[in-house]
Amino acid sequence: MGDLLAIDWGTTNRRIYRLSDGMVADTRRDDRGVLAMQGRDWAAEVAAIRAEAGGLPVLIAGMAGSNRGWRETPYVPAPATIAALAAGLVAPAADVWLVPGVRQDDPADVMRGEEVQLLGAVAAGLTPADALLCQPGTHCKWARMAGGAIAGFTTAMTGELFALLRGHSILADALAGDVAPGRAFDEGLARAEGGDLVGALFAIRAARALGRAVDDRAAFASGLLIGSDVRARGVSGRDVFVLADAGLGALYAAAIRHFGGRPVAIDSHRAFVAGILAIREAQ
Amino acid sequence: MGDLLAIDWGTTNRRIYRLSDGMVADTRRDDRGVLAMQGRDWAAEVAAIRAEAGGLPVLIAGMAGSNRGWRETPYVPAPATIAALAAGLVAPAADVWLVPGVRQDDPADVMRGEEVQLLGAVAAGLTPADALLCQPGTHCKWARMAGGAIAGFTTAMTGELFALLRGHSILADALAGDVAPGRAFDEGLARAEGGDLVGALFAIRAARALGRAVDDRAAFASGLLIGSDVRARGVSGRDVFVLADAGLGALYAAAIRHFGGRPVAIDSHRAFVAGILAIREAQ
Repeated sequence: MGDLLAIDWGTTNRRIYRLSDGMVADTRRDDRGVLAMQGRDWAAEVAAIRAEAGGLPVLIAGMAGSNRGWRETPYVPAPATIAALAAGLVAPAADVWLVPGVRQDDPADVMRGEEVQLLGAVAAGLTPADALLCQPGTHCKWARMAGGAIAGFTTAMTGELFALLRGHSILADALAGDVAPGRAFDEGLARAEGGDLVGALFAIRAARALGRAVDDRAAFASGLLIGSDVRARGVSGRDVFVLADAGLGALYAAAIRHFGGRPVAIDSHRAFVAGILAIREAQ
Repeated sequence: MGDLLAIDWGTTNRRIYRLSDGMVADTRRDDRGVLAMQGRDWAAEVAAIRAEAGGLPVLIAGMAGSNRGWRETPYVPAPATIAALAAGLVAPAADVWLVPGVRQDDPADVMRGEEVQLLGAVAAGLTPADALLCQPGTHCKWARMAGGAIAGFTTAMTGELFALLRGHSILADALAGDVAPGRAFDEGLARAEGGDLVGALFAIRAARALGRAVDDRAAFASGLLIGSDVRARGVSGRDVFVLADAGLGALYAAAIRHFGGRPVAIDSHRAFVAGILAIREAQ
């Protein structure tokens, strides 16, 4: 297989991989995401990246294919396969392809970028063809893989809710601390068992009003939110393949164990590269 | 019983009642809540209100008794009765009393102001002595009354979460519309049955990405949040006494019916006045 550039182009950041003979020869990350590209010339930007790499062809996944990116690339419907993504590629310039996202009609859900990691994880043999995968983040994706396809998925606003509470709510003062696995996080997980997120958050405010120490309440709130997310996914007795950085991955692993699942950490970069290579092969 | 002033002094607003022979002779509401009182002279403010009413004694409930108010008035523990509130009155000036709030230790919860309405509703015969009461709002209070006392309670951040999502989240654009009972609100209630709030919200964003109309999504989100709140309270087969204004009361009534309960609307002003008179009598 010839050399290739792959770009995971998100809203805030992007990561560029130079692939040679199916291996990562070079990779770098910067903050020129879709937001930073507003008003810039996408074609010139990508031409410059290609020129620097000797004019390699490039596959771009993520928000670059959204209506706020370079060119809107229609979603492929779930169940979605590598072949369907390859068939849905859009070429805004010669030797440049945008990878489509995936849509689900009921309940309505969408992804852009995560699909490459998900299908790549299966393609690389990092997960079975039938598996539950989890991609924690601002908007946490949970995907049910069946026969190697993305059969269905759920996006949970777990990370965004935490940021809203920490940044703008009456709890903000009490949520300034660090979040790490431990006693307070576990307490939040236990509180999530009741399935009453709206009724459990105010205890943080009440603890402050009652004069109790609240410096560990950020970890409690994180446990409550991540626990509420994991609880709703039915992980008990199942392997859950987690694609995340170490910090967030450890929190989700603890939550998955709490609710009876078996977390398995997956290298998300390796999964992304495997997905891009599989799409290129199917092209 | 002699004449009396009663003030429900909240964070943002206050309502002043002049009571004569147990009836409301006059009432007015303004926005001089605790926040607007920062840096002002509480004693002079209350003296002026009393002077205007011929020097009547005054009972003040709500956040005026918090550490951000006139003088911090220690919480009375649940189970809490009229007699306990009367015994816990704090007098920051002659013939002026602050009514204490109520605290619950596990799970930690607090109220200031709502306790007068709750105990007043029972005292006035508006609810039985054993009942489930609901006070919708930014922080919705749910109280279990037993033998006429506030036996336990839960504060749900339902209204604040809606405001956070509408004001600061990725869903903000889609949540600009009005909220009223109807099809979209009911759709939100149905979605709340799954007990997966964090996983259900993103459908609003996805609907927009899929090009669907989202002008009724504010009502959907409200139904999802209020439904998530009501679902966790176990209302099925029970009377639920709702103390609210007409708009919010109608939304909670619809949600309570959806989850198999029987909503009963209670006049919250009447309950407050009855509570103040009962405390005065027990003083």
